[in-house]
Amino acid sequence: MKKAGATLRAGRPTTATARPTRPAANASDRSSVSARGKPRYVYRFGAGKADGRADMKQLLGGKGANLAEMTNLGVPVPPGLTITTEVCRLFYEAGHKWPAGLAQELEQGMRRLQEVAQKGFGDPANPLLVSVRSGAPVSMPGMMDTILNLGLNDRTVQGLITRTNNPRFAYDAYRRFIQMYGNVVLELPHHRFEERLAKQRASYKVQTDPELPAEALRELVEQYKHVVREAKGRAFPDDPQEQLAGAINAVFSSWHNERAVVYRRLNNISESLGTAVNVQAMVFGNMGPRSLTGVCFTRDPSTGERVFYGEYLVNAQGEDVVAGIRTPLPIAKLKEEFPPVYKELYAVGQQLERYFREMQDLEFTAEEGTLFLLQTRTGKRTARAAVTIAMDFVKDGVITREQALLRIDPLQLDQLLHPGIDPKAKPKVIAKGLPASPGAAVGRAVFEARRAVELAEEASEPVILVRQETSPEDIAGMAVSQGILTARGGMTSHAAVVARGMGKCCVAGCSDITVREDEREFRAGDVVVKEQDYITLNGTTGEVILGQAPLVQPELTASFRQLLAWADQTRRLGVRANADTPQDAKTARDFGAEGIGLCRTEHMFFAEERLPAVREMIVAKTTQARKTALAKLLPFQRQDFIDIFKVMEGLPVTIRLLDPPLHEFLPQDDEAIKRLAEQLGLGFRELKDIVHSLEEVNPMLGHRGCRLGLTYPEINEMQAQAIFEAACQLVKAKVRVQPEVMIPLVGHPQEFRIAKRTIEQVAQATFKRLGTSVKYLIGTMIEVPRAALVADAIAQEADFFSFGTNDLTQMTFGFSRDDIVKFLPHYLKERILPADPFVTLDQEGVGALITMGVHKGRNARKSLKVGICGEHGGEPSSVGFFHRAGLDYVSCSPYRVPIARLAAAQAVLREKKA
Amino acid sequence: MKKAGATLRAGRPTTATARPTRPAANASDRSSVSARGKPRYVYRFGAGKADGRADMKQLLGGKGANLAEMTNLGVPVPPGLTITTEVCRLFYEAGHKWPAGLAQELEQGMRRLQEVAQKGFGDPANPLLVSVRSGAPVSMPGMMDTILNLGLNDRTVQGLITRTNNPRFAYDAYRRFIQMYGNVVLELPHHRFEERLAKQRASYKVQTDPELPAEALRELVEQYKHVVREAKGRAFPDDPQEQLAGAINAVFSSWHNERAVVYRRLNNISESLGTAVNVQAMVFGNMGPRSLTGVCFTRDPSTGERVFYGEYLVNAQGEDVVAGIRTPLPIAKLKEEFPPVYKELYAVGQQLERYFREMQDLEFTAEEGTLFLLQTRTGKRTARAAVTIAMDFVKDGVITREQALLRIDPLQLDQLLHPGIDPKAKPKVIAKGLPASPGAAVGRAVFEARRAVELAEEASEPVILVRQETSPEDIAGMAVSQGILTARGGMTSHAAVVARGMGKCCVAGCSDITVREDEREFRAGDVVVKEQDYITLNGTTGEVILGQAPLVQPELTASFRQLLAWADQTRRLGVRANADTPQDAKTARDFGAEGIGLCRTEHMFFAEERLPAVREMIVAKTTQARKTALAKLLPFQRQDFIDIFKVMEGLPVTIRLLDPPLHEFLPQDDEAIKRLAEQLGLGFRELKDIVHSLEEVNPMLGHRGCRLGLTYPEINEMQAQAIFEAACQLVKAKVRVQPEVMIPLVGHPQEFRIAKRTIEQVAQATFKRLGTSVKYLIGTMIEVPRAALVADAIAQEADFFSFGTNDLTQMTFGFSRDDIVKFLPHYLKERILPADPFVTLDQEGVGALITMGVHKGRNARKSLKVGICGEHGGEPSSVGFFHRAGLDYVSCSPYRVPIARLAAAQAVLREKKA
Repeated sequence: MKKAGATLRAGRPTTATARPTRPAANASDRSSVSARGKPRYVYRFGAGKADGRADMKQLLGGKGANLAEMTNLGVPVPPGLTITTEVCRLFYEAGHKWPAGLAQELEQGMRRLQEVAQKGFGDPANPLLVSVRSGAPVSMPGMMDTILNLGLNDRTVQGLITRTNNPRFAYDAYRRFIQMYGNVVLELPHHRFEERLAKQRASYKVQTDPELPAEALRELVEQYKHVVREAKGRAFPDDPQEQLAGAINAVFSSWHNERAVVYRRLNNISESLGTAVNVQAMVFGNMGPRSLTGVCFTRDPSTGERVFYGEYLVNAQGEDVVAGIRTPLPIAKLKEEFPPVYKELYAVGQQLERYFREMQDLEFTAEEGTLFLLQTRTGKRTARAAVTIAMDFVKDGVITREQALLRIDPLQLDQLLHPGIDPKAKPKVIAKGLPASPGAAVGRAVFEARRAVELAEEASEPVILVRQETSPEDIAGMAVSQGILTARGGMTSHAAVVARGMGKCCVAGCSDITVREDEREFRAGDVVVKEQDYITLNGTTGEVILGQAPLVQPELTASFRQLLAWADQTRRLGVRANADTPQDAKTARDFGAEGIGLCRTEHMFFAEERLPAVREMIVAKTTQARKTALAKLLPFQRQDFIDIFKVMEGLPVTIRLLDPPLHEFLPQDDEAIKRLAEQLGLGFRELKDIVHSLEEVNPMLGHRGCRLGLTYPEINEMQAQAIFEAACQLVKAKVRVQPEVMIPLVGHPQEFRIAKRTIEQVAQATFKRLGTSVKYLIGTMIEVPRAALVADAIAQEADFFSFGTNDLTQMTFGFSRDDIVKFLPHYLKERILPADPFVTLDQEGVGALITMGVHKGRNARKSLKVGICGEHGGEPSSVGFFHRAGLDYVSCSPYRVPIARLAAAQAVLREKKA
Repeated sequence: MKKAGATLRAGRPTTATARPTRPAANASDRSSVSARGKPRYVYRFGAGKADGRADMKQLLGGKGANLAEMTNLGVPVPPGLTITTEVCRLFYEAGHKWPAGLAQELEQGMRRLQEVAQKGFGDPANPLLVSVRSGAPVSMPGMMDTILNLGLNDRTVQGLITRTNNPRFAYDAYRRFIQMYGNVVLELPHHRFEERLAKQRASYKVQTDPELPAEALRELVEQYKHVVREAKGRAFPDDPQEQLAGAINAVFSSWHNERAVVYRRLNNISESLGTAVNVQAMVFGNMGPRSLTGVCFTRDPSTGERVFYGEYLVNAQGEDVVAGIRTPLPIAKLKEEFPPVYKELYAVGQQLERYFREMQDLEFTAEEGTLFLLQTRTGKRTARAAVTIAMDFVKDGVITREQALLRIDPLQLDQLLHPGIDPKAKPKVIAKGLPASPGAAVGRAVFEARRAVELAEEASEPVILVRQETSPEDIAGMAVSQGILTARGGMTSHAAVVARGMGKCCVAGCSDITVREDEREFRAGDVVVKEQDYITLNGTTGEVILGQAPLVQPELTASFRQLLAWADQTRRLGVRANADTPQDAKTARDFGAEGIGLCRTEHMFFAEERLPAVREMIVAKTTQARKTALAKLLPFQRQDFIDIFKVMEGLPVTIRLLDPPLHEFLPQDDEAIKRLAEQLGLGFRELKDIVHSLEEVNPMLGHRGCRLGLTYPEINEMQAQAIFEAACQLVKAKVRVQPEVMIPLVGHPQEFRIAKRTIEQVAQATFKRLGTSVKYLIGTMIEVPRAALVADAIAQEADFFSFGTNDLTQMTFGFSRDDIVKFLPHYLKERILPADPFVTLDQEGVGALITMGVHKGRNARKSLKVGICGEHGGEPSSVGFFHRAGLDYVSCSPYRVPIARLAAAQAVLREKKA
């Protein structure tokens, strides 16, 4: 490559007002092939003309595609070129080598760049300096490497001094370049340079870098070069071509650096995308008092308000805005101080927003009063802002309602429904677990449910229950806690499911901590948290924080309600909630649930005043004794159902019969067994034998679900009686009720048949006794793989199916949700699984069983109602699957109902598109 | 109905030599409809002519059909009639009422019977007495009720006295009739009658009933009638018609008595079959010294030898032979004492055996020297006899080889391979569990594996290991025990599987006992068995016996080997064995296994000299430390494989990589943890935390299978290295080896892909290092439902599939095999499930996944080898399914190999037939 001798001045386009129409999407095939007929590797932009376009993000990365588009739009952009993501893939395939032809295309591109910029790369008189940046198809801010001021050496720095008449600026640019290049390309640790810088500050007796004079910086350049020579055994490369090649390689390599890999894993971004490399002429916000740099949003990213929002620093480089050493000025100040720059920036922002039909996040620099845009992209925003902006766009006719519905990430809505940690806080994170239930909570650590109740109710202290893992025995303690932290268990562990149902924050499966319940403490590395110490949980990120972090409260806006109303008009899927108490049911209705899809009766068994009767029932030695104990529970259960039916008046309520293994209701440690034995009038040894005999090796696959009600039909009888008595009582009081009795864990049609017979007999007897009757359905969970395989036979008996995708996932994979934390992190890290199947439905495996179940079920009974009540009912991609599978409704925890409503609407819209 | 006045003498046919040809099977439709065009309810037989035939068992029951056939064959049979099983069903449907027309048909039948018998029913001069007996389509010996001597009253008894000139005989018949009828029809308890009988003995100062004179019996008749009047408030019915109707009803009702219901459940007999009722003229073996009664077999039912075998009693009734008060005489004695009777009986036996082409079990009576056959049926026999008889029939050209193969129940072969309890012993059964591994064992109870080893090895005592449940830690203890008894766990629990593999007797899931390991005792009701007390187990029946029962040893006959050779020529399925040690492998080859289908490597990890290294590996905190520990295990594993490969030379050996969760290798109680901590140089608390952290809520669904080798690839590496080093070493020594590496618990193709890559890398490295190579396969278990659902994707990578039907059954049903004992007995009792799915493959559910897996797998890879290595591989009906599903082989425990060979042959023959 030759050095270009031309000395043109800037890359500003001459026709900034021209606004080209958006190019046709199918034009991209043509332009991705070079004139030689081979795939094109280098795309140029500058002087109002670019090879690429915005819809070429896959090939040019987001940054490159948008720089091209902006150039075409007439927005002032420093000229440059983009090396495609395709090159990145070839680079890796060839073992970190450039594909044939790249060098030549790059040389041509650089020649054109020099022409447009009217500067010469390596030209000592009028040097072209460039930035070399990554730009992936999906935004990965700060994850990969960037090098600025490339092209400087001992000769070109002199040109820069001459042209800017600012030696301090020039040497500062030079020493920054060496430092950045040394670190990124030559892989020298930062501190090697920082030590020299600190020494220099000391010798010059100044506090901050900006106070260092030009001379000090010039010396620093020499010292830095010495550092490099010493460490690498050779001189810092002063050939700009060599610098450029090294920087390009470093950016490609950074695609696989650890933080980028982690970021992609966390954000579910494919490894195979690759990154593009953008080489762009430098412009300087730090060239003097008429230079500045900043970032701005076309709307307020926190609230969505239609205000021009941002901040800038005079005489500074972009990194200074981020570093936070100097406090940036609000954008309103720009209007006062640099009115032409502000005016042009504002106009460009509006133009880009209109053009992309999205709120924009802009990076800009004014060099000596001349504005340049360095980047534009869709701005990240809070959920609240996302909703407001979408609504405003609809109001202004920029996008349609359908586009607005598609534009909101349903998962983000969670933010609107839960408190969060103040983003301005700098909390001390001591551990990280699974983000099992969103929101944030502050409280005193307690290690026992009973202690949680004492502290919360008697001392009115906010508490956080910390357990190895929770069990149904802990319900009371969970109910009074602000949040729950467990060391074990996955996204659908007991703690996670119950917490989500309660709308309570939960961090589960936090293997970073060791919980010692007996010593009332937990350890996270060196930190020991004792009972009553304050901690804060972030259930949205999974972070565990020492002390009390400041919280911000959620807010439900009118825009939000409007959006959901539109969603309701669009969707086909019904949305119900999983709710076990009248309070849950109330929350569910408030969030728009159209019924209860899962009311778990076991949670009702744990209330303090009922547990003795439950235990009496369990240890009963005869059917008669069991019936006597159950008779004590009947009034409680009946009242539960009366209260829930009332709240849900006119809507269906699906009640699941008792599901968990009985040992969950009995104490495990000798002390508690001793106490209970006294209460029940049994010998300690006798009760211990009973407890022992109820233990199971794999309780998830044990004596639970319909197996309980089949071996002890009197349990089903009592529950059915409570349901029908409650329903009849309300019908007499003119309250409309729609009970749906659901039999859990059915795998064989005969299980269903026998349980159904019992329920029907109780219903008929109750109706006769009370002199009224109620319409009801009897259906089953489909949660055992076998049930899906023989769904036709089951549907001959059942009025409805409700897929229990938690258990179905457990058994289809053979994964215990309580133990998955042992290997799931590794599985996700190594991409053995694409996602946690307890969060995102496994459509290929579990989904195949669901599709089969729906198909076979409906074949056998046309009128079969089919829903799903696992945790996946509130996960957007899974909701999309359920829509396509033809389900009638999804049911999820009350706080997920808005998410499901939106996701169900999106499913319809996506189907239309396809 | 009128009383018949005729006084004919006997039902002997006039043409006893005529031998009709076997009737065509399709003739049954015609004859099952009466002349009136309605279904016929009553079938008559007598005087050489019968309405029914042998192939009408469904309608007439086994007894009725054979009585009809015998009559037609000219065999001397007392005349009678059979009321069909159809009537039994109608009787229940109508709420214990007779269908219209039955009374009339019965009257006609009784009229004909009186004509043939030449006696009158209720005729005081020449009374016809009848027996009323049940007769189901399937033999249910002794399960239902029988009434003899019906037709007696105060008048007819006088006729009997006159005709026999034997008042003692007549009154004895009369009092027996009242007692039997009172008990069966009137439902009075036996003791009410027995008390009177005892008093009468006392007054007459005699010891036994036969010593009572006629007068005493006459008095007893009056006393019995008094008993009835007092208890029922009305007189004993003296109208023979009323007696007959009552008896018929009682027999129908006995179809649903408790013991019959239990018997059908145990023997898998349908409830809907119903029983027929046979009304037959009485003949008396107790009419005097020329009368006799007995039972005989046409061959020896124990050995199968071609000898006429049986016993008889002179002047006795059939029940006396069974009661065992008098000692019967061997049939040889009959030849000496009653040559004409013997000759005729022998001829009839031969005739029937030839006719039915089966060894016959005959009941006979000679009344005053005249022979009558009361029943003939296929004789029950031991496995040894069954094989010998079938072989002899083939030799004699009576049946074909194919018929012989189909005639042997494969399950019965188990008897030939294990010791049993001497059938003559009367053991004290104290509890009953699941018959988990066949055979019998005697030993001293021990409650800890370590104690088992001490007693067995140091004191050379036979021991039986009694545990709540066993875990892999108990292996050493199990190995030295004669048998294993557990209180929990099903047919495929750890104890059951390991015991079967070892060919050791096991009773599992014995919920009748309470095991207190800490107190070294178990309780069964009131019986307390302490350490070192002798017990005996019967693993074939599930019985637990107090003390030392006498055992008999098995014997392998030439006939048996011949039968299996024929089976091998017939079958298509390959038969392999599950074997973990060279000894197992040797047994497997001896029993005809064609390879090892499952070699579980974990059992190798428990050996005493290896466990420390295994534990070191588990507690290792770094990959390096883990590798160091694994390196210590490598030589052991390599030697294991060398030894097994040698035994299996030339045959494939499928080695499964480590499968069980790691916590199984660590101690659980504080004492043992303390000891281990010292050994490993760790703190007690530290090790306890590690043990704690490895615990799982549902270990069956936890960190096991390929999940282990994926999270710790160094484990897979070590195992692969051991396999390939062993194989290379043998190849160099000219030993042919066929290793097949099997990856367990794969659910996602990516799991397989990654594990396979590791194994291939190790293989290549090993081959290169050792300068040789070995052909090998890498395949996977299909044991997680998801694997079957995505079998096409997995087959793209895998060389073979092996269905792990134990785990597949667990996950498809959601049944933990260790916990199923809590509800399975109830499920089987209530017929919710037709069979234990861990014993008999659930073809409908689990089978659907297998069919899908085979289909998808072969679609993706034509050459895919498909087998099964769950416990079902040795269960005949499951083997039939695997044959039909197109599998290449089954693999089962060595002792089941002969069963699988025969079952596989039968599958081919049944397919041909269909």
